[in-house]
Order: sequence, then structure tokens, then C-alpha cells
Amino acid sequence: MSVTAARGFSASGVAAGIKSSGNRDLAVVVNHGPSYAAAGVFTSNRVQAAPVRWSRAVLADGRLSSVVLNSGGANACTGQAGAVDTRLTAERAAAALGTDAREVAVCSTGLIGVRLPVDAVLSGVDAAVAELTGESGGGERAADAILTTDTVRKTAVAHGAGGWTVGGMAKGAGMLAPGLATMLVVITTDAELPAGTLDAALREAVRTTFDRVDSDGCMSTNDTVLLLASGASGQRPGAAEFTDALRAVCRDLSRQLVQDAEGASKEIDVVVTGAASEEDAVAVGRSVARSNLLKCALHGEDPNWGRVLSAVGTTSAYFDPDRLDVAVNGVWVCRDGAAGEAREKCDLTGRRVTVTVDLKAGDASAEIWTNDLTAAYVHENSAYSS
Amino acid sequence: MSVTAARGFSASGVAAGIKSSGNRDLAVVVNHGPSYAAAGVFTSNRVQAAPVRWSRAVLADGRLSSVVLNSGGANACTGQAGAVDTRLTAERAAAALGTDAREVAVCSTGLIGVRLPVDAVLSGVDAAVAELTGESGGGERAADAILTTDTVRKTAVAHGAGGWTVGGMAKGAGMLAPGLATMLVVITTDAELPAGTLDAALREAVRTTFDRVDSDGCMSTNDTVLLLASGASGQRPGAAEFTDALRAVCRDLSRQLVQDAEGASKEIDVVVTGAASEEDAVAVGRSVARSNLLKCALHGEDPNWGRVLSAVGTTSAYFDPDRLDVAVNGVWVCRDGAAGEAREKCDLTGRRVTVTVDLKAGDASAEIWTNDLTAAYVHENSAYSS
Repeated sequence: MSVTAARGFSASGVAAGIKSSGNRDLAVVVNHGPSYAAAGVFTSNRVQAAPVRWSRAVLADGRLSSVVLNSGGANACTGQAGAVDTRLTAERAAAALGTDAREVAVCSTGLIGVRLPVDAVLSGVDAAVAELTGESGGGERAADAILTTDTVRKTAVAHGAGGWTVGGMAKGAGMLAPGLATMLVVITTDAELPAGTLDAALREAVRTTFDRVDSDGCMSTNDTVLLLASGASGQRPGAAEFTDALRAVCRDLSRQLVQDAEGASKEIDVVVTGAASEEDAVAVGRSVARSNLLKCALHGEDPNWGRVLSAVGTTSAYFDPDRLDVAVNGVWVCRDGAAGEAREKCDLTGRRVTVTVDLKAGDASAEIWTNDLTAAYVHENSAYSS
Repeated sequence: MSVTAARGFSASGVAAGIKSSGNRDLAVVVNHGPSYAAAGVFTSNRVQAAPVRWSRAVLADGRLSSVVLNSGGANACTGQAGAVDTRLTAERAAAALGTDAREVAVCSTGLIGVRLPVDAVLSGVDAAVAELTGESGGGERAADAILTTDTVRKTAVAHGAGGWTVGGMAKGAGMLAPGLATMLVVITTDAELPAGTLDAALREAVRTTFDRVDSDGCMSTNDTVLLLASGASGQRPGAAEFTDALRAVCRDLSRQLVQDAEGASKEIDVVVTGAASEEDAVAVGRSVARSNLLKCALHGEDPNWGRVLSAVGTTSAYFDPDRLDVAVNGVWVCRDGAAGEAREKCDLTGRRVTVTVDLKAGDASAEIWTNDLTAAYVHENSAYSS
């Protein structure tokens, strides 16, 4: 259902010739109103792609009428020429849609440092606008057109009481780490909410979902999560109710990102409990999720809790090294900083793995979602740009 | 030549039965004086192995007469029982050598979380003391006995004017990251210098050598670098002169660690220039050296400068994203934050790779030494403890 699940939106995805594979590579999502309120969060990487700079600027007034997205090139580190390419893209969409370029966000994903074939992009915009539809097929083709090394389309929908809907699409399979990840996400809703409410809800939802995905510790130059609200349902849910639905969609899409992470054979939830603060729990979770050695061990189905402790020890969180407990798939293989239950009790044959760290320093907790490190990841990322 | 290159030292390495392979796994290094001044630096990981806690404590008075080292088990995360094992080891060596246990440092390396076979360790201490020799063979056997996943022995020697010598041995092949790395290093000298001078020289030398090795971003629980001075040459070099020789030995051993990093097919020097401060240069260098995506790309001989910029962008160093230059093996593939010279000019077929980042923000610089990420690394670390 994707971005066309909510009323007031149409979408399309076409093969514009940006990708050499000939697959769909350009999507357009249009908000038909009556409201055009919008919010967005972007990468915290200081090296930011031209479309990120553009979209951040046009979102300053909390209003968007459409989004153009392309795969096949990130338009990052492309200098002033790349900035012009993004502006031309927004202007072409605005002309075709009869709107202002300053209401058009642009998102790009793919290889960094390469100019986009701008003629292909511009004619692709025309083709995509011609194929816009509010039917589910439009949302699905749009979700297909933003994929890069992803192997499956990623969409999610949540419904609110009273007849309003939140729907979204995402891409992202590598360079996934906080701030946000190499992800493009567009979420639509037909709830009628002002931009300030959307912004607060989006930041709160992203904080505990997309920002907790840490596939490979690498932060992208292009991360963008956009939320567009058409108001077409005529419903005005409360902020808490809306945030819950939005968080559900963000969480669903986040899990789909981890499930499809490059080369992964295990999905690993790092759950940190007993922390003195949520900040401590997140710091410990990230450190564990970024241990290449632990990720290799779990790939080999080895519940190597020593590698968990060595990662915890690099943080400045509150804990006593001699009181740390670690469980792998529910078996407390480390108690009080030393060997606990027999490691042979751990069943690591499945795809899902949970590593739990109890810091015994407070009541706060957090989860980080990651995956294992495999030879397939190395292969995929050795060959990516060749 | 190793630790017996300097006068006043003897060493040995024996197969104590700690490793199931039957290889040498226990070494003893003895300082015969007339001076017993010593210094050490240890892991900054907050989860510290029992031998690290012990050695740090006994070094508090700047005096050591011997060191016992074992491979085949890290004695980390082994609780109070592990602490007792370390103390028993030092006491056994002290009894055999006719010294005090509080002059005996202990170093262990191997799997975390497993108790050492203490009977094997104690009888190994006796056997090693019986085989002590000041000949070069003693130093070489000691260097062999501390290896784990290392494939080659690592030793280095430097000679000072006037007839004094610095010699050392090291182990380390994985879990190599600052603070320090999974390394055990013992360096000896026959220069006659007080403990305070040794400590300052060691900290200065380590800061720009062992602390700049970042193989896989993982920080160990057991890192130890010890420096023992016998004074047997009767020479008292100046602090600067001694530090230079010590740094040369540390640098030589550091390069050997990177050369032998687990699964590596490329040695990568990340050189950061034009930084506003050395701290900035180190932060940028570490971020680049920890990019799994870049390390995969270089493994695939792809000069993927976009992955360099995305890593630089995650730091808080001073720089303007639109002025960054990046060279790969001397070819400036990125100029002013965008594509520069043709990437095809880069020759990445050799084992040595230099990635240079010019931040254009000042005169400071730093180097971080790392290696590529390979399927062999994944394989080795998936199977390590099984």
C-alpha cells in the first residue's frame, strides 16, 4: 500500500534510464491536499548530498506538495553542478505538476561522487508525473523505484481510530548507521495536523526507530525521512495517538531495513537494560552493535560474550565491570562479569538473535537493531562501484 | 634479537600445554639489573583482564624484575578466580627467580571469559625459568610463545650512540584498536634511566605508534606495553635521544602488527593533513580507518573516495565539506569535495595503500594504520572460539 494508503496522495515509479539495469529508478509522490503540512529529518553527516541541502531548505516553511526520488546515483559530493541538477529536477516536477519548485523535495540514493544523468532524470520526472495514481500500484511502483542494493520492497501502513491512515516506503540496505542510515523514507498521512505537530511526532518516532538501526556503523550523506500530511481524512488525531501510529510505521520499516541488510544472515537485537539513563543504554547498544568481532562471532553462531563485554568496556556509561550480565537468546552466559550459564545452551541456528546486556545501574533501557558481518557483505561492498 | 638484544636480560618461551596446538604458549623475560626501572601502558577498556589489573598495581612503584606472559587464554572476565590465577603465576615466578611477586608483571592473551589451566601455567613457569638465556634464541622463543592468531613473530631492535640498545617483541592480529589494541608488547633496554623518564618516553612513543594502529575498531581487555631498563650498558642517553630510539622500535612493531592483521590483504595508511589540530587529524583518521565500507572497497581495489568523505563527515573536526581533497595512492580523486582526477589513474594492485585527506584547515597532521576488511577476516573471527 505504501505512500498511497492515505487519502489525498498519488505516486508513481518509472524506469528513467538512470540505472544501467533498466529497473525502475525514479519515483514521484504527490500530496493533493487539502493540507500540505510536512516535516523531515535528515542525515547528521556534515558531508551532505545536494538533494539533502535542497530538501532541508524547502522544508523550512513546513510545507511540501510533492517529492521526487531517484536511485542510481546519490548526487553527493558533486559540487555546484550537483546542486544545479537537484534544482532543475525540482523545477521540472513543479512545472509538470503546476506547483512551485520550493514545494518539491528531492531525494537521491546510489553511488557518491558521480553526477546524475540529468537529462534522463528530467524526462523521467515527466514520465512519472504522467503515470501518477492514487491506486496501490502507484505506491508500490514508487517503493520499487527507490531501491538500490535492497532485495525487497519496503512499505508499511497503520490505521488510526476514526478513519485516518499513515503509510510509508523506505529503501536502505547498507551504510546503515545512526544519523540516520542510508535510507530514504517517505511517509504520508491523511490526518489533518499542522507542520509543528508533524515535526514533533516525526522526531519522536525516528528517535527510537530509524535512529536505532545500525547495520554497519557507516553514516550516509543522503539520509532523508519525509512526512507529508494531506488532511484528506478530515480527522485530527491527538498528538500522542498520531505519534504512536507513526512510530509503528517507522518501526515496521526499520525492521525491514535490518532484515534486508547487505549480506546479512542474522538479525541481531541488542537490548540494554538496567542503564542509568537512556543515553547510556543507547551508547552501550551502539558499541556492541558496532563490534565487527561480535558480528563475525554471531555469524558463526558463537555466543561470544567476551566480545560483548569488551565493547561495553569502551563506553563511558555507568556500570561496574564485575557486575555485568549478558544473555544471548535468553541464556545468561555471563553473570557478574564472568562466565555464567553454559554457552552450549544457546541456540543460534535461527535468523533472529537477541543479545541482552544488563548494566545493573538503573532502570533505563534501549534497543539497537543490527545484523551480522558476513563474507557476503565484504563481497557486495568490494564490488559495488565497479 | 627481541628482548634479549639489550644487555642485562634473559628470556625463554616454552610449550606449557595451555594451547591445545602444543605450540609455545608461555614466556618469561627477566631483568638482571643493575637497575630495575620500568614503565607500562595498559588498555583504556574499562573491562580489564586480571593480569592487566595485577601488572598495573605492581608497576606503581616503577620497578619490575621480570614478566610472565602466556597465550592460549586472556584471563579476562574470569572474576575473582582469575585474579587468584594471576597472583599465583607471579608468586611462582618470584619463587623460581628468588624475587618478590610484586616485581613480576603478568600478561595474558587469547579467548576472553575462560579460566586458564593454572596447573599448566605454573609448571610452565618453572620450565621457562629453567630455560632462561641471554642469547638471541631466548628472545625469539619468548616472542613465539606470545603469538595467538599472529602468523609471524614480531621483534624489533634499535641501537643508540654510545652503545645502548632498545629491543622488543609484540603480538597482536585482531581486536586491534586504540587504547591500545589486542597487543602484548615487552620492550627492554640496557640504558640507565629512572622510571619517570621511562614512563614519559613510553607514553610519548606509544601515542604516535601503537595508539595509531586501528585494525578492526575493536578494543581489547588485555593490552599491555611494558618497558624494562637494566642499566647494564652504563649509558645514560638524553630523554629525547632515548625517546627517538624507543619510538623507532614501537613504530617497527606497530607496522608488523598491521602487516599481520587477521585476514588482511592490504595495509592502509590513512594520512590526514591540513588539520586544525593533531586531535582533529587523529579523529578524522580513525573515522576513515573504521569505515567497513571503505575497507571493503579498498579490498576490491576500488578508490571509493565517496566512502572517505562520508566517514570524514561524521567527525566534529574543523573542515569545510566543499573544500575537502582526497588522494588514493597519490592520485587526487577528490578535489574540493567533488570528483577530481580520474579514478582509473589509481593503481591499487599492490599491498600498500595510502589514503590522504587534506582538511585545508591548518597545519597539523596524523597517520592511522589500518587494513582492509576481507572475507578471510570474517571467516577467522566466525570460527575463532569454536
